[in-house]
Amino acid sequence: MKIVAAKKILKANDQIAETNRARFTDTGVFVVNLVGSPGCGKTTLLEAIFAKIGTRVAPAVIEGDIAGSIDAERIDQLGVPVVQINTDGACHLDATMIRAATEDFPLKGVQLLVIENVGNLVCTAGFDLGEQLRVVVLSVAEGDDKILKYPAIFQHADVLLVTKIDLLPHSNFNVERVVADMHRLAPEAKIFQISAISGQGIAAAANWLVTRSTAPQAD
Amino acid sequence: MKIVAAKKILKANDQIAETNRARFTDTGVFVVNLVGSPGCGKTTLLEAIFAKIGTRVAPAVIEGDIAGSIDAERIDQLGVPVVQINTDGACHLDATMIRAATEDFPLKGVQLLVIENVGNLVCTAGFDLGEQLRVVVLSVAEGDDKILKYPAIFQHADVLLVTKIDLLPHSNFNVERVVADMHRLAPEAKIFQISAISGQGIAAAANWLVTRSTAPQAD
Repeated sequence: MKIVAAKKILKANDQIAETNRARFTDTGVFVVNLVGSPGCGKTTLLEAIFAKIGTRVAPAVIEGDIAGSIDAERIDQLGVPVVQINTDGACHLDATMIRAATEDFPLKGVQLLVIENVGNLVCTAGFDLGEQLRVVVLSVAEGDDKILKYPAIFQHADVLLVTKIDLLPHSNFNVERVVADMHRLAPEAKIFQISAISGQGIAAAANWLVTRSTAPQAD
Repeated sequence: MKIVAAKKILKANDQIAETNRARFTDTGVFVVNLVGSPGCGKTTLLEAIFAKIGTRVAPAVIEGDIAGSIDAERIDQLGVPVVQINTDGACHLDATMIRAATEDFPLKGVQLLVIENVGNLVCTAGFDLGEQLRVVVLSVAEGDDKILKYPAIFQHADVLLVTKIDLLPHSNFNVERVVADMHRLAPEAKIFQISAISGQGIAAAANWLVTRSTAPQAD
């Protein structure tokens, strides 16, 4: 009999994540862990980004959801290979789930694998999946105080996508405040302001992602 | 040495929640557990509802947040008694936190205690706090597929507040779909469509809450 502490679970997760990352690097797959609140626009963003990327990189998607396959069906309609992970109530994906999902998933030829995590601005922050890039999404509709209220997930992100920027005229969201808060917490993070509806910023984000996912990867 | 299973933790939480509920009922405090995604409008809603309620009931608030006291400061400015619980990273409130927060909190004279939970559409679903009423908030900006994607939290709610209804012209949110999905999952749940900006539905929700919180409570 032994007690397994939360710390050890996180350490075990980190080890599996490192194995995942090594495997992704070896096979030339650039992996993005996409996190954000429910309804912040993760799937809509992917639809817009994939349309802009076109044939420049070969994408695939893993969808993480508590229940159902609504998002995976949307990605499938784009002709992009997709796997749905149902967490059956669990509030985030972990490295073991990604290992299992990618074992049966033909990664050969895939250059960009986007893992759309469960909609959760808290629990997804603590679990490395083996990604090369962590992208956090914050929609204008959520309000400009979220970086201060949920610091962990922003602090460990490489990219911040401020989505639904078309809603600015209908909200009191202060973009400058968000940019300043993010610079304080994660000075290296890249920030894009985008809207899938107006198209603003989508090309810039897509081009940047193409460059990153086709650049030679460090070991 | 023993292993504490998640099931036992939940059972222990439920027992403390029952004790909390009995204490609230004895002291005549009607307690609401307010849950929803980050940025769905929980605090803004409270500001609007309290303004409409006026002096008809005496309110108090417990704010649950990962970090900081932004929301508690907003409630404090209304002259409403408020306690901030910082969960220090934890993704939901539990009954023990509520017991601790209310031990030092003078509940005498309070008729309506609103507990604003951590912004999280997943983890808050599993933890009874000892409330009499669970209210889930879904904003129009989050999209109309959320009830199917996060069923647990909606299934156990007594009230659904569809917020930011003023954003309907700027989104493809289908209110009828949400109402139908909610009726299927939680046929008894009361549904309000509201906007803190236009004021739509605020009076109706406030009046209903006054009636509920001043009605004689069952043991």
